[in-house]
Amino acid sequence: MPRIVMKFGGTSMAGIERIRSVAGRVKREAEAGSEVLVVVSAMAGETDRLVQLCREAAALHDPREYDVVVASGEQVTAGLLAMTLQNMGLSARSFMGWQLIKASGVHGNARVEAIERSALDEALTAGEIAVIPGFQGVSHDGRVATLGRGGSDTSAVAIAAGIGADRCDIYTDVDGVYTTDPRIVPNARKLGQVTFEEMLELAGVGAKVLQTRSVGLAMREKLPLRVLSAFEDLPGTEIVAELGADMERNAIAGIAADRNEARITLTGIADRPGMVAAVITPLAEAGIAIDMIVHAATAGERRSDLTFTVPRPALAQATAVIEAQKATIGFETLMSDAAVAKVSIVGVGIRSNPALAARMFETLAERKINLLAVTTSEIKVSALVAENQAELAVRVLHSAFGLDAEKAA
Amino acid sequence: MPRIVMKFGGTSMAGIERIRSVAGRVKREAEAGSEVLVVVSAMAGETDRLVQLCREAAALHDPREYDVVVASGEQVTAGLLAMTLQNMGLSARSFMGWQLIKASGVHGNARVEAIERSALDEALTAGEIAVIPGFQGVSHDGRVATLGRGGSDTSAVAIAAGIGADRCDIYTDVDGVYTTDPRIVPNARKLGQVTFEEMLELAGVGAKVLQTRSVGLAMREKLPLRVLSAFEDLPGTEIVAELGADMERNAIAGIAADRNEARITLTGIADRPGMVAAVITPLAEAGIAIDMIVHAATAGERRSDLTFTVPRPALAQATAVIEAQKATIGFETLMSDAAVAKVSIVGVGIRSNPALAARMFETLAERKINLLAVTTSEIKVSALVAENQAELAVRVLHSAFGLDAEKAA
Repeated sequence: MPRIVMKFGGTSMAGIERIRSVAGRVKREAEAGSEVLVVVSAMAGETDRLVQLCREAAALHDPREYDVVVASGEQVTAGLLAMTLQNMGLSARSFMGWQLIKASGVHGNARVEAIERSALDEALTAGEIAVIPGFQGVSHDGRVATLGRGGSDTSAVAIAAGIGADRCDIYTDVDGVYTTDPRIVPNARKLGQVTFEEMLELAGVGAKVLQTRSVGLAMREKLPLRVLSAFEDLPGTEIVAELGADMERNAIAGIAADRNEARITLTGIADRPGMVAAVITPLAEAGIAIDMIVHAATAGERRSDLTFTVPRPALAQATAVIEAQKATIGFETLMSDAAVAKVSIVGVGIRSNPALAARMFETLAERKINLLAVTTSEIKVSALVAENQAELAVRVLHSAFGLDAEKAA
Repeated sequence: MPRIVMKFGGTSMAGIERIRSVAGRVKREAEAGSEVLVVVSAMAGETDRLVQLCREAAALHDPREYDVVVASGEQVTAGLLAMTLQNMGLSARSFMGWQLIKASGVHGNARVEAIERSALDEALTAGEIAVIPGFQGVSHDGRVATLGRGGSDTSAVAIAAGIGADRCDIYTDVDGVYTTDPRIVPNARKLGQVTFEEMLELAGVGAKVLQTRSVGLAMREKLPLRVLSAFEDLPGTEIVAELGADMERNAIAGIAADRNEARITLTGIADRPGMVAAVITPLAEAGIAIDMIVHAATAGERRSDLTFTVPRPALAQATAVIEAQKATIGFETLMSDAAVAKVSIVGVGIRSNPALAARMFETLAERKINLLAVTTSEIKVSALVAENQAELAVRVLHSAFGLDAEKAA
């Protein structure tokens, strides 16, 4: 009998009517012949309310006491969903995090370490639906530990892996993964399937459907995921290790735009070994991660330009760090620009087809969109462009790669 | 080092400002050199909100899931109080009910069975203040169990007994136990001391300061209680096994009025053995408790009257039960009256001084207050009077027994 984990976010648990609707979905899965474990979030807004109470109580508070307070939100929804399922004639019960989820790491930001399977296995094989509060477990010192804000996708995946589930379904307020942000391209198309790697790249560049950590964990555990609407009966998106053979899908899964970067260019930099390290090391020591990096050395010249991007909120700090190292690095001028965006094409097809990158650059050139930097990986090509050209870039690429909904119909 | 339990109700935990004020009181006790354990209720209104959610989810719900939902309210306040105490520079931590309170009996209405003392003892002797959510523990099947609505006084007393506390202080929204209801007698006086037995009688006849069960448990465990205001710095009332020798207090602790009774009189009842049982047994089988009972047999007559009281909400049902047994019991008429009240004098002095009962009846007779029934116990004399004479009866008795505040000053 297939064993599945269904995870519901806070919006779908906000109030008894919505919990009843969630229970209806769970019922259908159970009656279709699956063993079902449900992971629930707190009602939308509840965790924020509890966090605010902690802040009012003490600006700096003991994370162990914080955990006790904020974990209560999911405890409530788990109990309510279990009794709602029972009221529909199903056999169901809640398990608290402290009863079976062993967590490691620091309080307030712990990770699932192990699941005590025996009681769960017993319940599931007896046909009972198990309801578990997301986002929490018990620490090594026997106290309530939460898994970090927004970590409930990851805890659902960890629980699914821990109980040997065949699939983990994430019910959320979007109905799947799209070829791009539908607010930019109204005829963006929902993907039937996407690979873990593609999903990681899409998430990394701004598609906020699932937590990156949850996708990485599912990939390692070879656990298929699905993203589905909690509110409508629509097919969602499967996230899998390899695209199905019968899946006719574009080589490009989607186009992503990320506005969270800022560019720094150092001109007239001495072209010598260790020069890039001289720039990156002080930034790393300040906790600032570099994403794109382009070293444009002109043949025959002894001095060149170095362009890289940092997270936009860290731009001022990064500029200060570099200026402080001016003598060591040896550059002429520092130019920075926050009004940039990274536009990427993502797809497993890129690996085997270099023509795709070429098509991307040609398409952008036709529209006179200037490339400030370019990086490529196995399944992604990214171009840094002026922020005011980002939406145009996404639209023309979406069209050029045959992703518009009309063409797919 | 004295070890004390401080219990705070929902009104004193309603919001961060009030929790801070509670923390200030706890701090003073700790700094005065006591080992302190604090038992907290949920924020006022929170348990009602959670109960309502359960009702909406399912009219008939699994008490084990109900427990999971409603127990969350006290977990939140326990965590918040612990972090507030830490923020004041004190060493403090919360313990959840499932970590140390073993509960027995049914879910939703369990009782404290045992306290796992070792972790608590360790914390307390190390100078840590322990904060425990009231009203909950862990059941034999390892799940969250709540101790029944309003049971947090009782759970505080049980915890205090379980950890060998020297005293249990109940902080509430009244500042002590009064000689009578101050809404009836504005110059009612706060008692410095009252015995367990007096408190049980005062509670049983309507003084709602503490739960009857909590007083009974403290009496069995010989655990002194104090009732104190959570909001004002006033001396409260001590509840003790015996009044202190230096305590100059009236023989009568207080006057109570109870409007929750209704009277039934059966006239012309056959005066034969087993007659009273023939009336009481069918009522007991219907779950209706009888309080006062007066069998007025007239000498030489073969028929007599039987008067008794039942809880007012059960009057209609009791009448129906008796009418159905009319042939078996054998009575002429059934008269019932809901407009009655039971007025009692309560005090350990009654045991040794029969003149006190006589003074009560004389005082009522002087005011032409008719006695519908009378019962006496070791430390209480009760008279059933017409409801519209009850307040007058309380006032004149309060005065006659020297309880008015002016005389005490």
